[in-house]
Amino acid sequence: MAHPVYLDNAATTPLDPRVLEAMLPHLGGRRGNPSSLHALGASAREAVEEARGSVAALVGASAEEIVFTSGGTEADDLGVLGLARSAPAEKRHVVVSRVEHAAVREAARRLEAEGFEVTPIEVDEDGLVDPADLADALRPETALAAVVWANNEVGTIEPVRELARICAERDVPFHTDAVQAAGRVPLDVGEVPASTLALSAHKLYGPQGVGALYVRKGVPVEPISYGGGQEGGLRSGTHNVAGIVGFGVAARLAREELDERVAHESGLRDAILAGVARIPDVRLNGHPERRLSNNVHLTVEGVEAESLVLFLDALGYAIGSGSACSSGEHKASPVLLAMGRDEREAFSVVRVTVGKENTAAEVEDFLEAFSEAVARLRELSPLYN
Amino acid sequence: MAHPVYLDNAATTPLDPRVLEAMLPHLGGRRGNPSSLHALGASAREAVEEARGSVAALVGASAEEIVFTSGGTEADDLGVLGLARSAPAEKRHVVVSRVEHAAVREAARRLEAEGFEVTPIEVDEDGLVDPADLADALRPETALAAVVWANNEVGTIEPVRELARICAERDVPFHTDAVQAAGRVPLDVGEVPASTLALSAHKLYGPQGVGALYVRKGVPVEPISYGGGQEGGLRSGTHNVAGIVGFGVAARLAREELDERVAHESGLRDAILAGVARIPDVRLNGHPERRLSNNVHLTVEGVEAESLVLFLDALGYAIGSGSACSSGEHKASPVLLAMGRDEREAFSVVRVTVGKENTAAEVEDFLEAFSEAVARLRELSPLYN
Repeated sequence: MAHPVYLDNAATTPLDPRVLEAMLPHLGGRRGNPSSLHALGASAREAVEEARGSVAALVGASAEEIVFTSGGTEADDLGVLGLARSAPAEKRHVVVSRVEHAAVREAARRLEAEGFEVTPIEVDEDGLVDPADLADALRPETALAAVVWANNEVGTIEPVRELARICAERDVPFHTDAVQAAGRVPLDVGEVPASTLALSAHKLYGPQGVGALYVRKGVPVEPISYGGGQEGGLRSGTHNVAGIVGFGVAARLAREELDERVAHESGLRDAILAGVARIPDVRLNGHPERRLSNNVHLTVEGVEAESLVLFLDALGYAIGSGSACSSGEHKASPVLLAMGRDEREAFSVVRVTVGKENTAAEVEDFLEAFSEAVARLRELSPLYN
Repeated sequence: MAHPVYLDNAATTPLDPRVLEAMLPHLGGRRGNPSSLHALGASAREAVEEARGSVAALVGASAEEIVFTSGGTEADDLGVLGLARSAPAEKRHVVVSRVEHAAVREAARRLEAEGFEVTPIEVDEDGLVDPADLADALRPETALAAVVWANNEVGTIEPVRELARICAERDVPFHTDAVQAAGRVPLDVGEVPASTLALSAHKLYGPQGVGALYVRKGVPVEPISYGGGQEGGLRSGTHNVAGIVGFGVAARLAREELDERVAHESGLRDAILAGVARIPDVRLNGHPERRLSNNVHLTVEGVEAESLVLFLDALGYAIGSGSACSSGEHKASPVLLAMGRDEREAFSVVRVTVGKENTAAEVEDFLEAFSEAVARLRELSPLYN
């Protein structure tokens, strides 16, 4: 079989060849540990600092506000746990939306085990948080509020500007997971006064195994790793120099090419939406307008999502089933349940996410295959008539 | 200037070209998220599992006992915090040697903040732990003992077989940091009944940003990351597939080539030792026989270590000052202080660590440069006459 058509860019993106090219000098030949004094160490340090500047620029921050991590999950963990644990002892309450990525959701669960009270913020049927609900949930003892910038499953873009401003007015630290938003939505921590913001390189054509947490200047964050005290004490461990360099280039390209990528992706996305609208009993999940440029999340009635993913895989199309960011457990997505869907529906959803490398021809072929797959699986299904 | 002669292999090793070659297919072209259902996800999963087998083989473990992490620090943190936190509530005591890497030392400090009592195990003037001291320190309420396999600064190899067996007999979980030992000492968790053991890829010619924790089957370890539940729930976050694949190949080569690497390294090490023995007032630190094949750790009286490192750097030789694994803070090494050295001496130590790519000619040239540098700096020093 030829290379499959890759329509699972929300799970991981292919590495941009320009990113790989920048990484190679740090993978080949001699290389340094940025903590070493000598010239090789210094040159590794410089490469890390250049990347830090590029990642900072992607979110409108200063370089010293960027902490490199091993990925989006660690960035979310550091933001959520780090903000909450550094709050004064009497602040033992956190507010977390019902549509968070597992990293934020599970970090909040960990805080619960440490004695924090967690108030969930509900969402509407499109997965949208109402700022009034956040405002109502805040208390004098709230240590942290967290709402995802754009949801990783259904693609709904949250009103983070308003949410962050409500928190800022009430002096409540605000964490936002921007892993899926980065490279698809302009990010500006000047406009959106978040305290911390999580990023991941491999969702924007950078390498796997690298991420970053933006930490607003002056905001206290307690580290969650313990060791050599790298990254200003906030993240211990030898730097992954090649990975960080790759992230830097990916971040720069994401900023420079944002408009053309969004135009390209939303064109493909809308073509998919128009195509699937012709298939009966297929429904779009997430907000119809406030959604990521690359995301199509569908309920396909009468079809088991796993079967559909595997059927399409056999035809040469790689798509996602619900969230592909989890360990593959067979559990209904908490995000869909929060949007009011039932358990049964949660097993009939697929996520089709385009990227900058997809073409209109691929989408056209995909639509044909998708339509065929759905029809075939429905014929076999006792649940659909 | 040509490429410097790299004699700082304990800080980070150059990537083996065979490792890079294995990584490239996972960096170029399409790539998958191992958590995805489709064929690209499956192929990423298979690559990760093959690497897991190779890393397991390096330490004589089964594949399912290996947890991939973002590096040695995270592996140490997971071992130390994970073992201690999963102990029954009445076990709030930990025993940690005075010659641990910062990752173990700081993780133990974190446990102290959580209410654990920490008993340090002293070392002799060569940095060696006496098994009798460990036995004496254990109590019925001991949740964990940790002793490094081989120290990262002075290179002393600890009697881990005996230490681990004492702990096993008393049912005390035993963690060992084998980051520097791996690839230089045969590791066998059958012989050494450790509960957990930390590894890092970039210390054995693999990529930076990847490590692993061996977790003995049946030993409970509480996770320190929260999210998608990858790695059997022990380490959340999308896999760094290319990095893990590189680690796998590096581990396989380290096992296959162990004997020749040790013979090569110890030959170079002994040549350095013989050479520096001719310079007055230069003393070897660490155990004279029980030491890593690649490590020369020296006190150079009357010379400031940083000046010596920078002077040699200018001459084209990259060596380390004390421990290069830390954030570059100007603090006396706790390892040297534990060995009975005073603060002043701790600033006059350098670490010269050879690797498989160094040659006898490089070492010969280095000895000349080293001798010259020491003489010049001593001429300038008010501390030396």
